[in-house]
Amino acid sequence: MRPSALGPGEEFDRIRAFLQGMVLRPSEVLVGPGDDAALVTPDLVLSTDLAIEGVHFDLDWITPSQAGRRAAACAISDIAAMGAEFTGVLASVAIPAGRWSEGEALMRGLRDRVEELGGALIGGDLTRSPGPLLVDVVALGRTEYPLLRSGAHLGDELWVTGRLGGAATAVRGWQSGREPAPAHRALWAEPAPRLTEARWLARHAGARAAIDLSDGLAGDAAHLGGASGLGIELDGFEIPLAEGVGDLETALRGGDDYELLVACPRGGLDPRGVEDFGRTFDLEITRIGRTTRGAGVALRHEPGGIPLLLAGSGYDHFQDEAEP
Amino acid sequence: MRPSALGPGEEFDRIRAFLQGMVLRPSEVLVGPGDDAALVTPDLVLSTDLAIEGVHFDLDWITPSQAGRRAAACAISDIAAMGAEFTGVLASVAIPAGRWSEGEALMRGLRDRVEELGGALIGGDLTRSPGPLLVDVVALGRTEYPLLRSGAHLGDELWVTGRLGGAATAVRGWQSGREPAPAHRALWAEPAPRLTEARWLARHAGARAAIDLSDGLAGDAAHLGGASGLGIELDGFEIPLAEGVGDLETALRGGDDYELLVACPRGGLDPRGVEDFGRTFDLEITRIGRTTRGAGVALRHEPGGIPLLLAGSGYDHFQDEAEP
Repeated sequence: MRPSALGPGEEFDRIRAFLQGMVLRPSEVLVGPGDDAALVTPDLVLSTDLAIEGVHFDLDWITPSQAGRRAAACAISDIAAMGAEFTGVLASVAIPAGRWSEGEALMRGLRDRVEELGGALIGGDLTRSPGPLLVDVVALGRTEYPLLRSGAHLGDELWVTGRLGGAATAVRGWQSGREPAPAHRALWAEPAPRLTEARWLARHAGARAAIDLSDGLAGDAAHLGGASGLGIELDGFEIPLAEGVGDLETALRGGDDYELLVACPRGGLDPRGVEDFGRTFDLEITRIGRTTRGAGVALRHEPGGIPLLLAGSGYDHFQDEAEP
Repeated sequence: MRPSALGPGEEFDRIRAFLQGMVLRPSEVLVGPGDDAALVTPDLVLSTDLAIEGVHFDLDWITPSQAGRRAAACAISDIAAMGAEFTGVLASVAIPAGRWSEGEALMRGLRDRVEELGGALIGGDLTRSPGPLLVDVVALGRTEYPLLRSGAHLGDELWVTGRLGGAATAVRGWQSGREPAPAHRALWAEPAPRLTEARWLARHAGARAAIDLSDGLAGDAAHLGGASGLGIELDGFEIPLAEGVGDLETALRGGDDYELLVACPRGGLDPRGVEDFGRTFDLEITRIGRTTRGAGVALRHEPGGIPLLLAGSGYDHFQDEAEP
């Protein structure tokens, strides 16, 4: 078993593109997929996320209850990335025969986490599974001012909440047969949807685009840039790594951080704003780059250095069009 | 493999009760689970339904495209049962490695069926599956006048659309290794959500409670009666059986019909209304019983006969309270 957010690979990219292409955007739907969540008139935000044993979680790593807590948090993170207020979830659970108590524990964990985050479990479906334990979480939110991936302007500053790479380091540990450090384990097992943080940034820093970091900074920055029709330049030396994370690559490719990448107008978040944010949320926020003309994600390894286009940053077809 | 809507059995009932008990109904949510769909302020109807290979469909029976069509229709049937207008779906699909083309076909079928029914595919999730092919369909609808399961009054007449037992007869055929009759196969493979029919019945016949028949008439009637705090009396000799269905038991327990069971005030649907309905929808509607004091589902085998309480009609604990 090799849990990862998605099976990477060309074939997967092909079907993902196919599925995105087949999705309609009728008049009532303001924003279809390709964003963190769908936005339905007038202010409803909806997201659906599968969590499957052996793909997204592994019961050798966490308990069923923790798996439920994590599935809820990952789904709700999409609501945070839209700058929306979280209202509730529907959860469809499939439980293998003879494993009812694990299914119950998963649902209990899920419900608890939903309530901690200020929402309610409002419905769902229950069936048996002939294979893995799994749950699909549909998260609901409301906002009149959604933070879309497509909202960034040229020259916007890119900010990231928290520190990156801890969750991926935990996964790497498990996959190598080692128990990860407790802090890394917690970062993977208990992601914190940045619900109030996103709304604060929209109000106080003029944030106008956001995405949550589930696939890894490089790929998710490419999504935001692609949706906004802009290139992304990241200052590698500024990217905040979680304690004990040695290499930048883990932050760029690891995924599972569920922090926010936010685009704000230049100067929207000044040093005093950074301090306010830190005090309000007990959480760092760091400027790590900017949007540029062109396309693709480029990385600057040192101050004043030449930004180099990242290969495989999620949307290679955008990079083909990038200006050198 | 023994596909069936749900694995029956005590353990399953226990966890279902557990899950229903843990669902909250916050102020914004007007109707939580236990109904066909959740109703969220002001007029949004939401339902989530898992369709799992080996549980809900079998690719020895239907093609992947048909499985997608069916998954969409079954989910959208919940919107019909709320008397709501169907607007769209989100679909989370999990595809086993090496079976991408089946996954694509399933999603194409799903999308086509959604569009035929007047909605749009507005979002979703895609992941690999370590086990079966599966899709979770979240259906959305709108209504200001929802048809709840709990809306029936004492003495209401119970009506059913279409004819019952055909789909279950197809399943029984497959499970016995026989190819079912084409008409039965079609009833199972291509259920027709009664979207406009439900709204017509609300407008023209004063319908005030409804449920779609997915588990079988006995169980679903018990759900409606239980939610309304009433007993149900069915006239077995009136229940319309699909062509080639010999026994009433198949209609009572078979499930998968996706017809509507509707409660209307006495006289709300007169002979002329029945004729109008039939002409408008090219579909029968039949009065098969009424709500009564007490609880549980009772069956009258002949006109003027004594109604006998059905055992195992879905909610045995209601029957314990039934008046003899």
